[in-house]
Parts: sequence; C-alpha cells; structure tokens
Amino acid sequence: MPACKILKNKIITELIKCFHTSKMACSRYEYVKTYEREDNILPNVWIVVRVDGKGFHKFSKIHNFEKPNDENALNLMNYAAMTVMTEFRDIVLSFGQSDEYSFVFRKESNIYNRRASKLLSYVTSLFTSAYVMNWMMFLPKTKLQYPPCFDGRVVLYPSDQNLRDYLSWRQADVHINNLYNTAFWNLVQQAGLTAREAEAELRGTISSDKNELLFSKFGINYNNLPTMFRKGTILLRKRVRTSPDDCIGQLIVPMHEDMIRNQFWNTHTELLGKYLPGEYLYNCNSTEDLSNILLEKQMETLKLNNIKKEEL
Amino acid sequence: MPACKILKNKIITELIKCFHTSKMACSRYEYVKTYEREDNILPNVWIVVRVDGKGFHKFSKIHNFEKPNDENALNLMNYAAMTVMTEFRDIVLSFGQSDEYSFVFRKESNIYNRRASKLLSYVTSLFTSAYVMNWMMFLPKTKLQYPPCFDGRVVLYPSDQNLRDYLSWRQADVHINNLYNTAFWNLVQQAGLTAREAEAELRGTISSDKNELLFSKFGINYNNLPTMFRKGTILLRKRVRTSPDDCIGQLIVPMHEDMIRNQFWNTHTELLGKYLPGEYLYNCNSTEDLSNILLEKQMETLKLNNIKKEEL
Amino acid sequence: MPACKILKNKIITELIKCFHTSKMACSRYEYVKTYEREDNILPNVWIVVRVDGKGFHKFSKIHNFEKPNDENALNLMNYAAMTVMTEFRDIVLSFGQSDEYSFVFRKESNIYNRRASKLLSYVTSLFTSAYVMNWMMFLPKTKLQYPPCFDGRVVLYPSDQNLRDYLSWRQADVHINNLYNTAFWNLVQQAGLTAREAEAELRGTISSDKNELLFSKFGINYNNLPTMFRKGTILLRKRVRTSPDDCIGQLIVPMHEDMIRNQFWNTHTELLGKYLPGEYLYNCNSTEDLSNILLEKQMETLKLNNIKKEEL
Amino acid sequence: MPACKILKNKIITELIKCFHTSKMACSRYEYVKTYEREDNILPNVWIVVRVDGKGFHKFSKIHNFEKPNDENALNLMNYAAMTVMTEFRDIVLSFGQSDEYSFVFRKESNIYNRRASKLLSYVTSLFTSAYVMNWMMFLPKTKLQYPPCFDGRVVLYPSDQNLRDYLSWRQADVHINNLYNTAFWNLVQQAGLTAREAEAELRGTISSDKNELLFSKFGINYNNLPTMFRKGTILLRKRVRTSPDDCIGQLIVPMHEDMIRNQFWNTHTELLGKYLPGEYLYNCNSTEDLSNILLEKQMETLKLNNIKKEEL
Repeated sequence: MPACKILKNKIITELIKCFHTSKMACSRYEYVKTYEREDNILPNVWIVVRVDGKGFHKFSKIHNFEKPNDENALNLMNYAAMTVMTEFRDIVLSFGQSDEYSFVFRKESNIYNRRASKLLSYVTSLFTSAYVMNWMMFLPKTKLQYPPCFDGRVVLYPSDQNLRDYLSWRQADVHINNLYNTAFWNLVQQAGLTAREAEAELRGTISSDKNELLFSKFGINYNNLPTMFRKGTILLRKRVRTSPDDCIGQLIVPMHEDMIRNQFWNTHTELLGKYLPGEYLYNCNSTEDLSNILLEKQMETLKLNNIKKEEL
Repeated sequence: MPACKILKNKIITELIKCFHTSKMACSRYEYVKTYEREDNILPNVWIVVRVDGKGFHKFSKIHNFEKPNDENALNLMNYAAMTVMTEFRDIVLSFGQSDEYSFVFRKESNIYNRRASKLLSYVTSLFTSAYVMNWMMFLPKTKLQYPPCFDGRVVLYPSDQNLRDYLSWRQADVHINNLYNTAFWNLVQQAGLTAREAEAELRGTISSDKNELLFSKFGINYNNLPTMFRKGTILLRKRVRTSPDDCIGQLIVPMHEDMIRNQFWNTHTELLGKYLPGEYLYNCNSTEDLSNILLEKQMETLKLNNIKKEEL
Repeated sequence: MPACKILKNKIITELIKCFHTSKMACSRYEYVKTYEREDNILPNVWIVVRVDGKGFHKFSKIHNFEKPNDENALNLMNYAAMTVMTEFRDIVLSFGQSDEYSFVFRKESNIYNRRASKLLSYVTSLFTSAYVMNWMMFLPKTKLQYPPCFDGRVVLYPSDQNLRDYLSWRQADVHINNLYNTAFWNLVQQAGLTAREAEAELRGTISSDKNELLFSKFGINYNNLPTMFRKGTILLRKRVRTSPDDCIGQLIVPMHEDMIRNQFWNTHTELLGKYLPGEYLYNCNSTEDLSNILLEKQMETLKLNNIKKEEL
Repeated sequence: MPACKILKNKIITELIKCFHTSKMACSRYEYVKTYEREDNILPNVWIVVRVDGKGFHKFSKIHNFEKPNDENALNLMNYAAMTVMTEFRDIVLSFGQSDEYSFVFRKESNIYNRRASKLLSYVTSLFTSAYVMNWMMFLPKTKLQYPPCFDGRVVLYPSDQNLRDYLSWRQADVHINNLYNTAFWNLVQQAGLTAREAEAELRGTISSDKNELLFSKFGINYNNLPTMFRKGTILLRKRVRTSPDDCIGQLIVPMHEDMIRNQFWNTHTELLGKYLPGEYLYNCNSTEDLSNILLEKQMETLKLNNIKKEEL
C-alpha cells in the first residue's frame, strides 16, 4: 500500500537521522541541525524543475554564439539535459529552448521524499556540471572564459491540463522569440541595419508581418527553418529501434514536435497515462534533424559504459 | 529608510512583472506562471547555504584522490568556493571541509530579494560550474570521468551565537573525521591492514587513543599535520598587503584558524560587527600554508582580468 | 481571462498595500510589516480546512454530554458549521463527526487570494464563535463552564479521488469509533461494568463481534441507530423545495448519506462537476431525521433576516 | 541539553504518529494523512500572533459601540486576551487596541513543537471563544446579533529590536488613530457636522492641529484622556501584591504604559532578559484606571476556581 510505504520511509528516515545524531551527541553544537526546515512537496502533483541561464545574453556574446541560433550551443544544452534525465529516472519529459530547460517529474515520484531543496539543487547542479564538462565536445574551438551559472525553480502543477498548458506556454515562447530574433538578426547581418534600426523596423509588427518581411526581403520561408529552432527540443525516454527487429535499448530521444496540439499527447500516451516508455524508430540516415548527433553520442556513451562496467 | 526602500523595490518588481506579463498577454497559457510560489527568506537572520558532494565516496575512489586527504582536490573545492564568494559580495565567510562548503550571507543581505530558490540554485550551480571548469588546473593528470554533482540547502540562524555554533559544529566535524581517517588510512596503507581490520582496530577508541596510535605506530604527531586537513578552510574577504606600505587590493583569503575559540571572532571583528573587510598581511615566502597557491592564482586572475577589462 | 484577472487582482492588492503604507510613512517602525511572509495556496487543488475540538474529552464530561452520542451537542456542531458554510460560499461540502468538522473549498476558489493563514483563522474563528453563541439554543439547561477551543489545519488534495478518499477516511472513522463507543457505553451504563472492565471486554474484538454483542446483550441492532451517529453529518448547499412547485430557496442541507459509495457522488453531481447547487425535496413531516431541526432553524433565520433587512 | 531534548521530542512525536497510523492500518484511505505538510517555525525567533476583527466597522455600528472608544468593548477584548494568556504560559506580553490583539511568545517557546497552524488556530479560536462567552459580562444591555469573527496571522521577529519596533509600530498606530477619531467624533457629536464635513475639516491636519482643535473647540486636553484610549492595553504576567507583605499570586496585569520609550523595557526586565515574572503593586482604591475591573474579575475567577478545584 503506497501510504504505508511512504510512512515507513519517513520512519526509516527519521530513525537514520536519529542514529546519525546520537553518534554526534558528544558535540554541544549539534542542536543547530534542528534549524533545518522540512520542505517536502505535496504528493500527487506534477513537479517541474526549470533551469535558466544567468546572464546568458552576455555569455553568448563573449563566446561568439551564432545568431539567432547556435546549433552547437543548443545541443550542448540538450546534452546536459540528457545527462540529468539519465540520472533522474522519474523525469518523463524535458523541454529546452534558448538558455532554459524544464524537467517534468512524474506525479507519483517519491524521489528524495519529494524534498524541494534536494530536488532543485541536484537537478541544477548536475545540469551545470554536464554543461561545463561537455563544452569542448560541442564547442571545441571556443575557450570557456568563465564558469556559466544557472538558476533553478520548482513549480507544481496539479492537473494534466495545467502541465500541458505549462509546456504550451514555453513552446509558444520559442516561436515568438525565434520569429522576432530571426527577423532582427537578418536585418542586422544581411541588411546591415544597426541594432536600434532593426528594433525600430520590427516595433509593432505581428507574426504575419515578420513572416512576410523574412520572405520578401531575405527569401526565407520561416516554416522551413530547422524545427529545433522553431519548436525547441523535447526529450523523451524511448525504447529505440533501428528496424522493427532490432531494439538498441532504452534511450533519451530528442524531438522537435508540437506539444500544443493533441496529436503529441495521443502519440506519446505514456506521458499522461500509466508510465511505460514508448517506442521510437531511429533513422540513422536522416540528416535533417539537428539533434541526431545527440542520439549517436548517447549510443557511443552506452557502448563505452558497457565496457567500463566490465572493467570496474 | 530601509523599509521604504524594500517596499519600493517590491513595487518596482511587481510593476516590472506586470509589464512583462502584459507583453505576453496574447498567450492563453500564461496563467501557469501564477502557479509559482514566493519563498522570500525572513529578514534579519543569517543565511547559510551549504553545498555537499553527491556520492563523493565513489567519486573520490574513481578519480584516485589521495587518502585520507587530497590536497589538490581540497584546493579545487576552495577555488570553486572563492569563485562563488567573488560573485556574491554578501557572503562574509565561507567554510569548507571534505566534499562540503558552507556560505554565510550577511543578515542584512537583500540579494535577489532573499528568494530562497534563487539563492540556493545560483550558489549551487556556480560552485559546481567552477569545480568542473577548474578541474584541470588542480588535477591535471586525472581525467574527469563523469559530471560531479552537489546538493544544496538553505539554513537560517537568527542569532550570532547560533551562527558561531553552526560553524563550530562543522569545524568539530573536520577534527573528528580527519583524526579517524588519518588513523584508518595509516593502518591500511602503512600497516597493511584490510579496511575491515582497520575498522575493527578503531572501534570504540576515543581521540586520545587515536593520537597515541598514530604516534606510537607511525611516528605521526597529529597536531603537526597541515592545518587545512585538521581545521578545514575558512575564506574571508580581506584587503591584502605584502608589506605595510603595499596594498594589493581586496581578495578572498583562505585561512585554517580555529573558529570555535573566541580569538577568531575577536580578530575578525568585521564578521559580527559592522561589515567592512579587515586587513591581511600576506607572506609570499611562506610555503607552509597549503592554500597559498589559491591566493596566488587569485592575484594572477586579477591581473588577467585587468588586461581583459581594457580590451573589452 | 482568468490569469489576467488574478494578476490584475495582485497588482491592485499591491497598490492598496503601497497606498496603505505610504499613509503610515511617518512611522520609522513600519518596516516590521515586511517581516510578514506570503502563504498563498497552490491554485487548482481542493482545500480542506478541518477544525478539531481541543480537550473535548474533558469538555464533554464537564458539560455532561450524553454518551456515546449527544444529539444536541452534535447539532450545535452542525449549526456552527452551517454558519461557516453560509459565510464562505466557496465551501461546497462540509462533514462533521464527534468534535471535528471538515470544510471543503472548491479547487477554483480564489477567496482571500488563497492565503492559507487568512482562510484557516477565519474558518476556525467563525466556527468557534457560532458554537459559543448558539450554545444556549441547543443545550439550554447546561451552563457553559469555560470557553471551548478548536484547532484548525489546512490540507490540500490535488485530485478528485484524493478528496473522496479523504472524506471516506473521515467517514470510516465515524463508524469505527461509534461502534466501539456504543458497545463500550452500553457495557458501562446498561451492564454496569467499570470503564476498565468494558475496555477489557472489547479488546481484540472486530466489527462483527461488537455488532453481535450489542444485539445479544442489549437487543440493539446497530444498523437501526440514527444515521447521524453512524455516518456523521454532511452539509450541502441545495435549492430546497417542499413540493415540486414550491421552492423555499437555497439552504444548507444536513444529510447522513454514505460518501464512501459511488452513489453519493452520482447523486450530487455538482460536487465534482461544474458547481451549481442541486435540488433537495424537504419532507417537513419526517421526524426520523435528527437534524431536521437544523433546517427549520435555518428557515426561521432566513425569515427573521428578511424582516431585518427591511428594517436596516 | 536543549538540542537533545528537541530531537528526543521529535522522535517521540514520530513514534506516536507511527503507532497511531499502524492502529488505523485497516483503512485504505489513511494515506491522505500524508498530504498534511509540516510548518514548524524556525527556533530562536520571537513569535507574534495577531488577531484582528473581521468587519468590525459594521460590527461596532450594529452593536452601538460608543464612539470614538467604547470602554466596555475594549475591556471585553482585554478580557478575552487575558484568557488566551492564562492558557498559553509562553506568552510574555500581549498588546491590544481597537479590534486587534498581538500575542508575543518567547523565543525559546517550544509549544506544540512551534507548529504554525496549531499555534495560529488555537490562539484565534480561544480568543474568539472568550470574546463571545464573556459578551454579557461587559455589554449586558446589548444583544449579540451575529457571531463575531477574527482573522489571525503569525509574524516572526529575530531580534529584540525587531520586537520592540513591532510593538512601537502598533502603539504608534493607536495614537494616530485615536487622535483622529477623537477629533472626528467630537466634530460629529458635539459640533453637529456630518461625517463628510468632519472628514473635510480634518484633511491635511497634523497632530498639533488636531490637539489645538480639540482644546479650542471642545475644551478637551487630549493628554488627559484615559491612557487606555491613547496607549492601548499591555498585558503582563506579574506577581501581584496589595501591600509589600501580601502577595495575591501570579496574575495577568493590564497596563497602559509607553512601550516606545526605553523606560518600559528597563522596568519590565523580564521581557528581554531571562523570563521570570516581575512584581506589581496593586492599588485597589485607584479608580483612574479603566481596566482595574479586569484585575478584579481575574481575582474573582481565581477564587471561584479555587472553590471549584476542591469540588471537582
């Protein structure tokens, strides 16, 4: 029975604490430990941890990120998120765009007894760690000038609809920002406008104006730009096959689908239903997908780790 | 008047939020933003953020850290903490030992409006980032095998005595652990005992027993071991001089003093009194102090940054 | 749009606070107001406020409550709860038993901006106030010896199933306690056992044992006891009719149905569906229901208040 | 050692919970209990619980309270607060004015393990209960028309200075409001102005203007008005004597002193120092003090209770 289990866990935790404390009972300072407050999250709600780059406007400038989108910098973000998702099995979906990433923990998750600080600090720390450690893999020609930093927050969503709306909010944000940025940077880089002139040009325009401007001035059909730039990156845990007969194993799969539409949720029924990773057919010949590289790197790592596991 | 200022700040924050929101008013999903909760910390209490390595027993084994203490690994921790302290000017003291570091924010600090999640995640993220980024500087021969991860927590202490007791608690912990570990690893490395045998040998012993064992069996006078190992590392912000006439500037100075005694607090009166960094006389010829290297690296960085500032 | 409305409300609240503060700007002490913390409840979860008598074992003894159930004391509880439910329109269901009462606020409720302390203290205070004020109406022969006191707590339930399970938990509790108490007090009052002897007699018995004991020893068919004693009291807001053609108006109706079964939720569809008070046919000739008196008192009050409204 | 004691208490509490839960293990609904959140207050800070009348503008109008101050209504507030303070021995000072009362718990208090909801709801409930129960004693000619209701909040103050500033803030508020109200009601009741005219007359005036107006128009020397109206009521626990040789016992003593000045804190040294109720010399012949009646009622109650204690 789940309640009994939770209670049992709590008692065990308490007993461990008690034991731990009694061991240190020689110290007259130990009382300060009682000043820590409990911050366990309400059960049965979706837990979203969102990390967000601190001062990434400046960071991307100093490190010469391509504008409006730097494919490698985005894939470094994606790779760091995959590391987090590999570590925390209760994350069912991650979504990233620009310098932010959201991690969605299952409603039923009891990880770290749902202690908010524990969850928040581990996710933020591991994401940061993987970002810095893998910098050279994605941006080999750029020296990291100073340690990048991410803030994090925990937000709770009681209903499935709330969660969908949260993800729709973040994905709608990608579109709004990317359309603006694409127009802005084309005006600056192609048409030679100053930042101020480009801003003035775009002031008051709506989506269709910017689409039109991109097409008429620069011959760009916005809808043909890479989906990663237009939709952000979704990470799902999937049993990956290269053919109906060959299952590679369970991997974190990057996608750029539209989460606002029902189709996404109807396809990936494991997300809102009983959680059991779905299947994914991997086409290794496809070159259109900018984040195929991530899947390949992951498969390499798996192989490397298999070897290592034997060695250890 | 401080209250007016705080209120003014709050109103301005609210107005900015309001403006920010109205800009996005086109999205029907924006309501999810209202699910974020406020978590501002009570004013006028000491804020301690403590980060703690996750699974560092395994991490130190895989990376062949020297036992019982790896000077370079400890200085990497110290260097990461110095990065945090350089960024957050409201930290008046940091204290590190083993795989943990505590950061003490001034009671009066209003950083990020004292939002707990913001503070917790930034400190943990920056510490992690600096740890990974500077790995090669301190452990050039050891390849980082996987991204290290730190958890963090925020603990509040209302009175100065509470804060002193907290720091005494952590520093007493260094002594207890280090004495045990020094005895344990000498039994294993010098006397050739297995881990189990060494454990059995030490079971039930008190401090004086272990001191005696170290001296009689291995000729080690525990009190002569480096202070960094026995006392941990304290970081204070100081105006550094190499001679009475030559002030290098304000630096983060590592020390290994005894915080349990009153003398420490009487010497560094800026900590509990009106905060104004004290002075520190630096003896560059001294080689006894294992963390002098940190001060030197910091001075180098300052010089490098000065050059960079001109370039930018 | 609801999000805009909530944000608008927040800004207005903030502006009012700001104005309120500026008026008092002459005081150098006003800064202490900034020490109050926000405690708004997560949106879109069921809010349950449960009040519980403090030391009611002693209180019921001193005031000679009938044992195992005092009909008048229970109806005083019910009447106090009806007062609370009349005041707080967002309460959709209340449930009482013994010396406790649970109030269920709609998930969508935005009362007092969902501030937990406000909600908790108002509900507890009004319940207490109505309990003391109406004492004489229900227990006219018993002098109130000292002020009774209730504690309160706020508990949040994200899903409808959680809420049903909460109410099932409380209602199952009525059954367990009442069966035990009925057996206990019959042993004491009818069979002349001491409390200790009665306790010993019942130790280790299960439900069927107690049912059997009541029937064989005292000729009591437990299932024929008043439903209020066996099921507790549910309060629902209903449009009350005395006949299909005559609608008295909207009232708080006491019932003693079984909330554990699906039938209750299928009948009162307004509870989990879109909230719109259902209908209730009132049989004024029925005397079986111990809480009919509450409905009558309420109708009287309505009439009195109508008159008063004209007078004021 | 206090820390050990606190930890011991926590373990005992946990074990009791555990036992309590295991007893109910037969119910599949019990898991809902795990949805309750812990809300223990940080140790070593002053805890202030403030209750505040809900809609008392209307309440005082309907019940014909004398304007600007109703001595009996204020003493009913004071009496209710004395009941709270008698029950909660960790309250060292209470302060009331108009329709609000603040209760100050000792920093060291461990009442209900410092659970905020428990503390908040008990204090608010008992205050309300005593207010309604004793209505007839103070306002025998006025029928209570509907149940009055109070909200409550918990505010924490880390330092002694913070606490003094809080109390100064509330006491400064009495002065500002009372001076305005005295002027306003004299203009209305004595000079026959309408509410709107009186408001217009007072708009923009400062303290000295209102003092002058009261004196010149109505011959009122504001400083001669009863101190209860000008300063509010402070309740302190004191060992009361009628003469140096005769100690009645420990009572809750109402006073109307100035808490803004140092003298108050120098006189009642028990408040900020080691808590040990001070002494108070009671002059039963003094008639100047409007709240002497409270002390007398308390002595009566003590006598009655003594008799009752024998009877029970």
